[in-house]
Amino acid sequence: MKRTLFLIVFAAITLLSNAQTWIWYPGDYEIWLGNEMNNRRTERGAFFPPFWKMDSHYVLVEFSKKVELAIPEEIEIAVEGKFNIKLDGKLQFGMPHKFMLPAGKHNLNIKVWNQSTPPAIFVNGKTVHSDGSWKVTYEDKEWIDESGKASDTSATVYMDAASNNFNNPSTPPSAFKLAIEPVKAVKREKKNDGELIDFGKETFGFIQLKGLQGIGNIHIYYGESPEEALDTKYCETLDRIKVAGTTITDEALDVTSKLTDIYTLGNSKAFRYVYIVKDSGVELQDVSMLYEYKPEVKRGSFRCNDEEVNKMWEVGAYTMQLTTREFFIDGIKRDRWVWSGDAIQSYLMNYYLFFDAETVKSNIWLLRGKDPVTSHTNTIMDYTFYWFLSIYDYYQFTGDKHFIEQVYPRMQTMMDYVLSRTNKNGMVEGLTGDWVFVDWADGYMDKHGELSYEQILFCKSLETMSLCAKLVKNNPDISKYDGLSMNLRSKLEPAFWNETKKALVHNRIDGYQKDAVTRYANMFAIFFNYLSPEKQQIIKKSVLMNDSIMKITTPYMRFYELEALCALGEQTAVMKEMKDYWGGMLREGATTFWEKYNPTDKGAQHLAMYGRPYGKSLCHAWGASPIYLLGKYYLGIQPAKAGYSEYSITPSLGGLTWMEGTVPTPNGSVHLFMNAKSIKVKASQGKGTLTIVSVSKPKASIGTFEKLKDNRYRLLIDTPEEVTVTYRQ
Amino acid sequence: MKRTLFLIVFAAITLLSNAQTWIWYPGDYEIWLGNEMNNRRTERGAFFPPFWKMDSHYVLVEFSKKVELAIPEEIEIAVEGKFNIKLDGKLQFGMPHKFMLPAGKHNLNIKVWNQSTPPAIFVNGKTVHSDGSWKVTYEDKEWIDESGKASDTSATVYMDAASNNFNNPSTPPSAFKLAIEPVKAVKREKKNDGELIDFGKETFGFIQLKGLQGIGNIHIYYGESPEEALDTKYCETLDRIKVAGTTITDEALDVTSKLTDIYTLGNSKAFRYVYIVKDSGVELQDVSMLYEYKPEVKRGSFRCNDEEVNKMWEVGAYTMQLTTREFFIDGIKRDRWVWSGDAIQSYLMNYYLFFDAETVKSNIWLLRGKDPVTSHTNTIMDYTFYWFLSIYDYYQFTGDKHFIEQVYPRMQTMMDYVLSRTNKNGMVEGLTGDWVFVDWADGYMDKHGELSYEQILFCKSLETMSLCAKLVKNNPDISKYDGLSMNLRSKLEPAFWNETKKALVHNRIDGYQKDAVTRYANMFAIFFNYLSPEKQQIIKKSVLMNDSIMKITTPYMRFYELEALCALGEQTAVMKEMKDYWGGMLREGATTFWEKYNPTDKGAQHLAMYGRPYGKSLCHAWGASPIYLLGKYYLGIQPAKAGYSEYSITPSLGGLTWMEGTVPTPNGSVHLFMNAKSIKVKASQGKGTLTIVSVSKPKASIGTFEKLKDNRYRLLIDTPEEVTVTYRQ
Repeated sequence: MKRTLFLIVFAAITLLSNAQTWIWYPGDYEIWLGNEMNNRRTERGAFFPPFWKMDSHYVLVEFSKKVELAIPEEIEIAVEGKFNIKLDGKLQFGMPHKFMLPAGKHNLNIKVWNQSTPPAIFVNGKTVHSDGSWKVTYEDKEWIDESGKASDTSATVYMDAASNNFNNPSTPPSAFKLAIEPVKAVKREKKNDGELIDFGKETFGFIQLKGLQGIGNIHIYYGESPEEALDTKYCETLDRIKVAGTTITDEALDVTSKLTDIYTLGNSKAFRYVYIVKDSGVELQDVSMLYEYKPEVKRGSFRCNDEEVNKMWEVGAYTMQLTTREFFIDGIKRDRWVWSGDAIQSYLMNYYLFFDAETVKSNIWLLRGKDPVTSHTNTIMDYTFYWFLSIYDYYQFTGDKHFIEQVYPRMQTMMDYVLSRTNKNGMVEGLTGDWVFVDWADGYMDKHGELSYEQILFCKSLETMSLCAKLVKNNPDISKYDGLSMNLRSKLEPAFWNETKKALVHNRIDGYQKDAVTRYANMFAIFFNYLSPEKQQIIKKSVLMNDSIMKITTPYMRFYELEALCALGEQTAVMKEMKDYWGGMLREGATTFWEKYNPTDKGAQHLAMYGRPYGKSLCHAWGASPIYLLGKYYLGIQPAKAGYSEYSITPSLGGLTWMEGTVPTPNGSVHLFMNAKSIKVKASQGKGTLTIVSVSKPKASIGTFEKLKDNRYRLLIDTPEEVTVTYRQ
Repeated sequence: MKRTLFLIVFAAITLLSNAQTWIWYPGDYEIWLGNEMNNRRTERGAFFPPFWKMDSHYVLVEFSKKVELAIPEEIEIAVEGKFNIKLDGKLQFGMPHKFMLPAGKHNLNIKVWNQSTPPAIFVNGKTVHSDGSWKVTYEDKEWIDESGKASDTSATVYMDAASNNFNNPSTPPSAFKLAIEPVKAVKREKKNDGELIDFGKETFGFIQLKGLQGIGNIHIYYGESPEEALDTKYCETLDRIKVAGTTITDEALDVTSKLTDIYTLGNSKAFRYVYIVKDSGVELQDVSMLYEYKPEVKRGSFRCNDEEVNKMWEVGAYTMQLTTREFFIDGIKRDRWVWSGDAIQSYLMNYYLFFDAETVKSNIWLLRGKDPVTSHTNTIMDYTFYWFLSIYDYYQFTGDKHFIEQVYPRMQTMMDYVLSRTNKNGMVEGLTGDWVFVDWADGYMDKHGELSYEQILFCKSLETMSLCAKLVKNNPDISKYDGLSMNLRSKLEPAFWNETKKALVHNRIDGYQKDAVTRYANMFAIFFNYLSPEKQQIIKKSVLMNDSIMKITTPYMRFYELEALCALGEQTAVMKEMKDYWGGMLREGATTFWEKYNPTDKGAQHLAMYGRPYGKSLCHAWGASPIYLLGKYYLGIQPAKAGYSEYSITPSLGGLTWMEGTVPTPNGSVHLFMNAKSIKVKASQGKGTLTIVSVSKPKASIGTFEKLKDNRYRLLIDTPEEVTVTYRQ
């Protein structure tokens, strides 16, 4: 007899409308799924989980809804977990798949326990559906006294139920899988004792072995490069399977199964090449793969006269496709983890490519985890601050205030953690156990004392708290965070500006400025507008365009460096930089963009990192930033008000002859074409402004330009029709 | 193919020594098992989980150990979860069941992920074993920088691994089950449309149905009384199974299985009677049960000349046996939950019966749960305080300082929660969402404002914090809690003593004493020694022995009431009370002691509670207090120093002719016989004192009595031999 504690009830439910969806406690499914994601890393066949606290879902959740029915209504119920149903305080027998609600006003409660996967329900009736209007709590605090009277639950904290388009009762959230598709290798050749198989480009999935027979081991060495796959001693990932007549064992996972014609490995991997070495007693006919991916629609686009730039955009988009999985992860070969600093860049690229808002929210929930906060996000101080910043970015691009309301309590406790660790100046310094990351720099970077870069991110985080406090109408918090951010802001220049160096210095120890100047704080100060326009221009020369300041060799910080230059109107210079840097990777044969690229490296030097010959990830989310830069600073399209209710278009050819592209918005898109003489804009949603530079007053097919200073003209657009503009460069 | 994420590896390990045991993160297994326990409550076939937050284990745990080996050594490894092995920072391939440790000094790490059940490991080698010397953490914070260098983990918080005698690799902690034993019914009779089956006494387990055939439903109504079992509309628990030819469905659990000759129900229940009503299409040969129990040894004993008292002790012991399960729970029929106020009494009785220290620790971990604290323990303010008190009790009886060290951080955060909710007088008042319980009283009890009872428990909790801070050598905390407790202590009398009423009043609202006097604060003030001996004697008359003060009708508060009287030397009066009260239940036919007993109730009134005709639990842990009172205040045996390194014996016949009994100690026992002329003491562990009253100087077979005041004499005992004493009453 099977005594199943965790029942997953998949009732055969007739879908009467599209409203019903699986619901759960906000953040819980995301944290659970994130654990699945973050625990798929392997290093040479060893399981390699994160080094930070992994949180878990609330195992007992009450879902409640007040209903009012004109006539009785039968609801069908599917649940992940052991559950009960309470109607107007009265428990109902068993765990029914169907339940008849009587007419009238009623309180309906469903309480679910599930240790393994997040408690989730799916309810479907003619008018009663599980959706975001349901309330959830992990402690209802409803007890009864000796007389049978229920307690006052007015202090119980309820949240709105969360969901993510699991609209079918038979596919519960915990069963979620990415899509798969069979893919053949493009080339297969004998090498030494084995065979090197090339899939033609960087890819991700499960290796499949066809026609296995006999007895013996098969070693599979994965490589993003042929060098890596062939280097059986140092390749980063590998697998080993043992064929023994009728059974086959995946040795890394310690799982034995019956031998079938096509055997699929249990661990998905990132690779372009696999090198297969087998014992002589084993036969193997063919090697192919199941490509595993998240189905995303490329709602953004970019084309121009320069094919290298077009390639850059396409390779960036493919890099984003591969790194956009259950979550936005960093690199697909090695970590496969969700990292806050990497993720905020993925979000920004995503707003210009997929506009997948659900996955942004999932990342934010996962990165935050649960209280108590026991370390910085991913243990990294800067990553904590990016987590705050990403939330306001999300609001700006999506206009989704409800999410801010849901996540705000966790923002408060995260900031409490930061504030509990500030020094006597109210600044942050790395304490033991804090990872002060900043960047993978090619040279010494001091991490001691008060780093200007960290204070600037901290200050912006405090400002973000204040902005979000305004959105959730928390007045005490508005005062608190306004006070804290203004106080810190006022200290930044006195602490770090050095008039001799004409720059913000890198850090201060015991109140004394250190000598080093790095790019980080200076570039953030520019696009955060923390310095006067004059100082911004000074920094451009003294730091950003000064080759004696330590160069940035990660696409990660190049993202912000180039953003700072674009914000100062240097699109033409940035275009050259992009073609040098990302174009450089393309010329090295990149099919996806890398974790780090130093143009002075040669050959296999490009593959090494972390003291390991193939430690570098050749498909890293933060490599894809041209997607973002081209959309925001060349097409020049961004939200002027939250959720693109108003947009702003300030296009810049930056040396191109023409360009054309689309930027997705929550419910539509903005399309722009531009050459030296004309511009076409078609925005299917909202209204906005087009601001351009022209030596004479431009003409528009709809509306009239107004003149600003310095040959800048602005056109108000409030039509879904295409607007054609002629202007003179 | 099976892709099992959670591997439970049961290696066939040769046991070389007894040292190795399954280990886990302290508190985690207890919380997980507690969720299993607390989620077994049902109400008329509906799942009835708790209304407080259920916590969960850390899903990712690193186990580490520094080893030093003269020669290489192979270890065998069993793990609950997906895991890796790291030797000196280097990850090893796969998830091996065996691993060869080289000679020399090494760092061995095993990191385990498990969402469903607590990560746990079992390691066995010639010298290397999993045990409490291993360190555990849920966030190792060990990252590597760009060069491959590992981070400084000196700030990582490690705890000592926990264990609980799971010493066999093939029985991992998550597989734990209580013992079972088949039991036959004692009587079977037709009643109305069904059959009433009597198991002869209160019991607990799984009903078994033999020889089922046909098609139709079988209804099973459980009862602690025949009235309850026969009342199909109102009995508290029931089951329904559906037989359909070759299959059988447990409808409450929604589980269908193949029909077998003996069918065992999925839910265990408490009952003495079951009433079975079946459809005519179903045949049923016999009804029996699997008695489910925790194997415990009755190390304590008590016998005397009064058979009613002996019966009281035996029925108390059986009540304890039934309520001592994976944890000490409250009542076995209804809640089956772990409640802090109930549990502290179970612990105290347990110290005089089983001396099962492991289960006390399990309860304490479970009741505390994880941070953040979001409500009082079980939502009840008083239960939070009992949680604190129970920890120092545990230390006193067991001497286990290590446990205090492990649990102290959670004591701190629990007290932080309490302190964050005090009023301007530094006192606690029930806020919305707080359950101010005190007792199930037969009359109105005001729960508003500052209750004297709650302040006294709060004060004792602060003193407990200070005592434990001393044990863990936390000097700042010693000062902090000494200050807080002395401050509150100094306010108690001024706030609550009423010279007219000669008593502590029940509560104060807005600074004004209310009129009511209840027994609660007054009796706690006595045995906490919070009042002068004079005031204690005054209270004895004005409150404890004053019938106009609202009577206590729960064994729960009778426990403390009688303890207070015993502390004042009223053993003879208390003996009469016990015989009236517990004897009263026995005369009503009790086979276990009840949740509540009002001698003035008649017939089925005894069964009603919570507005329900059978709401009362007839087997409730707090009913068993004679076990404790007889051991502590008649045999008079208690620890004088932690862990009985010194014991104190102050026996009192309290009207009995003779008595004899054993009180267990951590590694032995104290046995005492006493009649009007002689006393025999045999203590197998430690040393101690025997203090008696005698009209002339008593004589001892070993040692000499010293005279104290008021005809009291004291003998030092420092021998495991039996000491015989003659004295004159």
